[in-house]
Amino acid sequence: MVEYDAVIVGAGILGLSTVYHIKKRHPNKEILVIDKLNAAGQAATAKSAAAFRCLFSSKTNFLLADSSAEFYRYVQEDLNVDLKMRWVGYLWLFNEENYEKTLPVLRDLYKKGFTYEEYNSDELAEKLGIRTNFVDDEEAQLMGLGNAYKGIFIPKAGLIDVDLLVKFYESEFLRLGGKIQYVTKAESVVVEPGEPLEIPGEPYFWQDANVVGVNTNKGTIKAKKTMIVGGAWSSQLLDSLGVECHIKPKKRQIFSVKANTDALGKLLFTKGFNDVGCLPFTILPNPSVLIRPVLEENAFWLGYADEFPRAFKLEEDSQPEENFYQYGIYQVLVKYFPQFFGCHPFSAFAGLYAINTLDSQPVIFEENRLMVVGGASGSGIMKADAIGRIAAALYSGDEYAVLHGGKAIKVSDLGLKNRLVEPEKLII
Amino acid sequence: MVEYDAVIVGAGILGLSTVYHIKKRHPNKEILVIDKLNAAGQAATAKSAAAFRCLFSSKTNFLLADSSAEFYRYVQEDLNVDLKMRWVGYLWLFNEENYEKTLPVLRDLYKKGFTYEEYNSDELAEKLGIRTNFVDDEEAQLMGLGNAYKGIFIPKAGLIDVDLLVKFYESEFLRLGGKIQYVTKAESVVVEPGEPLEIPGEPYFWQDANVVGVNTNKGTIKAKKTMIVGGAWSSQLLDSLGVECHIKPKKRQIFSVKANTDALGKLLFTKGFNDVGCLPFTILPNPSVLIRPVLEENAFWLGYADEFPRAFKLEEDSQPEENFYQYGIYQVLVKYFPQFFGCHPFSAFAGLYAINTLDSQPVIFEENRLMVVGGASGSGIMKADAIGRIAAALYSGDEYAVLHGGKAIKVSDLGLKNRLVEPEKLII
Repeated sequence: MVEYDAVIVGAGILGLSTVYHIKKRHPNKEILVIDKLNAAGQAATAKSAAAFRCLFSSKTNFLLADSSAEFYRYVQEDLNVDLKMRWVGYLWLFNEENYEKTLPVLRDLYKKGFTYEEYNSDELAEKLGIRTNFVDDEEAQLMGLGNAYKGIFIPKAGLIDVDLLVKFYESEFLRLGGKIQYVTKAESVVVEPGEPLEIPGEPYFWQDANVVGVNTNKGTIKAKKTMIVGGAWSSQLLDSLGVECHIKPKKRQIFSVKANTDALGKLLFTKGFNDVGCLPFTILPNPSVLIRPVLEENAFWLGYADEFPRAFKLEEDSQPEENFYQYGIYQVLVKYFPQFFGCHPFSAFAGLYAINTLDSQPVIFEENRLMVVGGASGSGIMKADAIGRIAAALYSGDEYAVLHGGKAIKVSDLGLKNRLVEPEKLII
Repeated sequence: MVEYDAVIVGAGILGLSTVYHIKKRHPNKEILVIDKLNAAGQAATAKSAAAFRCLFSSKTNFLLADSSAEFYRYVQEDLNVDLKMRWVGYLWLFNEENYEKTLPVLRDLYKKGFTYEEYNSDELAEKLGIRTNFVDDEEAQLMGLGNAYKGIFIPKAGLIDVDLLVKFYESEFLRLGGKIQYVTKAESVVVEPGEPLEIPGEPYFWQDANVVGVNTNKGTIKAKKTMIVGGAWSSQLLDSLGVECHIKPKKRQIFSVKANTDALGKLLFTKGFNDVGCLPFTILPNPSVLIRPVLEENAFWLGYADEFPRAFKLEEDSQPEENFYQYGIYQVLVKYFPQFFGCHPFSAFAGLYAINTLDSQPVIFEENRLMVVGGASGSGIMKADAIGRIAAALYSGDEYAVLHGGKAIKVSDLGLKNRLVEPEKLII
């Protein structure tokens, strides 16, 4: 039987970035990626809101997101691979309370050279045509909606085409000689004793035991290193080995609404924020419903990351819920943006966040010849390049990973044993 | 419909200790315990190794275990409720390396007034009839067995009858007017909006949402407070609400071997360690197989807490695995204790540890009117009284819980948001 140097379970954005960086550093290693679906990035990766931002308060977040965005910019501008990156910026609306809480963090970041622009409620009302104050609106108060007291515009942020990004990593990995096998589902992980003694049921606890590959619907694949990069599905494989990755699945939904009225067309192409001449990626005050402009579709994507009591639940084919739009998102949205009155989504999709319930940051660790990469908690696209480089550094046995742009991060910072990640103060 | 003040899911040792302490402090509250089985403490509680120790390096562990053991002593000696507590002590065998690592911790504890006794390998060989050195045993070396270089005897430790302890808490709770309903399975948790608006599918994310009870096979039970104390099963109910409790299930097995030879009878009634005149609860060096004397059954219970690749897996009726004894425990045991040569278990049982994968300490927290108590990670019996008091303090809104003996612990130390538990250096 062929033994690969490494087999990677999962051809999502994190799996592909990881193998691209490993293969680039180790061109002679035989690397195989498997995925249960029939093409790359078809699961949660395809269901992303496809946005990125570089402004974070946590050093970890900043390093991962900023270096990844700069790498994507390099791919697009220097390698001339169109990723449809658009620097439309993030516009973040705050009520009084959250603005007061956020201000010290922003000022601190400003001193470090991060730029942002501030808008007051009158400016927001004028530029966006939104309602900013609900003091006379009993219904809005019952709903607990926050006033749009201030808007913070972050220019270093924007949109990206995830499918093009996936294809970049996939094609580069293949060009370097990597192999991908689709429609191949990892059903279990193979564990063998270091020194097999042919005892039934081995390894026993007094034996060394290592992961040596995966059993799939197409047979067993052996490898010197096995990597689980299965997004929300990783914990299922890892639980069967008693390996805790702290990743839980949560459904996230996006609803697409056409800008098919004059008012919505004007909103989509709001001027004055960015060079693209469109609405930034916008986050409402409270609850923080998000609005992503989709220029190619003349549409807006609308979403909300709901917490309690949204279940941690794996499902093969997550479906968006009509009521979640109708009674959830729409009710909030239309209070701020009357332009959306009467709007129905023309399409919708849902995917699974792979939430790291420790600290919402990625985990990248190895034990018993098994590597685990995941738990990006909804920031997988915007951090994928850095995560891939850190995973490649772990694979290579390096203490530090060098990210695009030259900054370094300690590999063990994102591991489990000596984990060291700064909590994020700028939370959307 | 009746609304209880509190409904508690799970009549295991932690659930019963919790409701006993709540009811004692709030005699007028209507408290209902439900359990899917037909009596108290029949799941993992009944499958415990039924031992306790008070010597821990972590302040948290010490507070929980010492105060609980002192309470059980009080119940037995002052309340004259026989719990069959026997202070047989723990005898902990170390190889050279682990002894060197443990020595500074022990010396530090000694300075604080904790007593222990140390035995060298010759003394161990003489007292126990064990082999202490495997330098000439190729097979033992292949198995990675550690020499019995030193033995540390901890006197403040011993055995307890878990069923009697369960019955104590159950009967006291009932005597105080508490209610228990068996054969009642919590199938889901009921969530309702703070202010119902009769919208289909509410609560939506812009509404306040709270837990108001549980749906069971016997109908819905409403309560002002709902507590999940379901051991390894807790995460199943909590996952459906997106509430992370960091608890995972892992099967643990115990095999019972009769002391039916002269050599084993002599070993069971080893003199010189304790007043009972029996073998202490003994832990082998590496792997740390455990031997629990069971005087009433003229037997030894044998166990081992295996890690990788033992799965995190829920199962209704965990079964012990013959091979785990035959090729696992027995092979290790007989190398140290030739007295066990040829021994087969006459009975065996298996249960689920509720492992807290954060730090192996209990979690006691509340959110959205839902309380969670669990994750004792195999130390539930020996810490049950303290855990119940802390849970009762949380229920009462206290900042500190006063444990038996008068020491206090901050309730939030065992919560999730401001968790503060010292890592344990004395790990078995």
